[in-house]
Amino acid sequence: MASSTSAAADTPGEADLQAIRELVVAYESAWNVGDMDAMGRLYAPGVRWVNVKGMHWQGFEAVDRAHRVYMDLMFRGVRQDLQEIESVAQVAAGVTVVVARWQVGAYTSPGGHAIPPHRTRMTLVLGKAEGRWRILHGANIVIDEQAAAFDPIQARPPG
Amino acid sequence: MASSTSAAADTPGEADLQAIRELVVAYESAWNVGDMDAMGRLYAPGVRWVNVKGMHWQGFEAVDRAHRVYMDLMFRGVRQDLQEIESVAQVAAGVTVVVARWQVGAYTSPGGHAIPPHRTRMTLVLGKAEGRWRILHGANIVIDEQAAAFDPIQARPPG
Repeated sequence: MASSTSAAADTPGEADLQAIRELVVAYESAWNVGDMDAMGRLYAPGVRWVNVKGMHWQGFEAVDRAHRVYMDLMFRGVRQDLQEIESVAQVAAGVTVVVARWQVGAYTSPGGHAIPPHRTRMTLVLGKAEGRWRILHGANIVIDEQAAAFDPIQARPPG
Repeated sequence: MASSTSAAADTPGEADLQAIRELVVAYESAWNVGDMDAMGRLYAPGVRWVNVKGMHWQGFEAVDRAHRVYMDLMFRGVRQDLQEIESVAQVAAGVTVVVARWQVGAYTSPGGHAIPPHRTRMTLVLGKAEGRWRILHGANIVIDEQAAAFDPIQARPPG
């Protein structure tokens, strides 16, 4: 089948896979201790981000500021734990697209809504410059656990 | 500011911008007439997709099948109209990351929920092979219009 052939063909090498995993774990650590300077070091200068509510932030300054505001407003102490890096696709030399699944703790939105614990699937476009992988683009989506029952594609066993 | 400099620096050339716009409009047309063969021709072989409910489909066969099932189940006749291509960032030669905003009509989910008209922001990673742009990855997020009031970054005027 085309799908499995392609999935295999676009896997980056072991050293890049390891560095990419370290970046995702660094993101997790930065979030969980609320260290937004550390998180900022993971962004490329032109980073763009579409958050779980569909807001679109463009450029380092906007992405950095928005994350700092929301960390202070509602996320400090709310854990975001990496469940699995589901895929890493190399789409060009030094550019990969990663999908990672997260478990996020309960929090209260600025509008006063109590958000229960939930999972998200985060797409990260990563670029390697001067030997370092950084985030070029993020798009984060809340997993609808009810809808998952109607997923027309068989779920894969956990990796 | 780093953000605006980078946003300018990573813009692809006019011919690529035009071809990318044509791809997004072809996606819109394929959806709105329910032509899933036409939509399938826009996918790269190794395409991956994370839908608005956080489902993750990997490879052409899965992405194609899932979209066909959902088109037949709930989306036939439901319009998805392009509002704006908000950004096109060239992240490598022949690879761009596009953010497009859509207006989607009302529909009923397989679980029986009535979904009112809403907007989405879709991230598309596009790759150019043999002179043709195709979709390498999609991640689509419903815009929470209530949450948008709390966006810490000033909205830009419509382009």
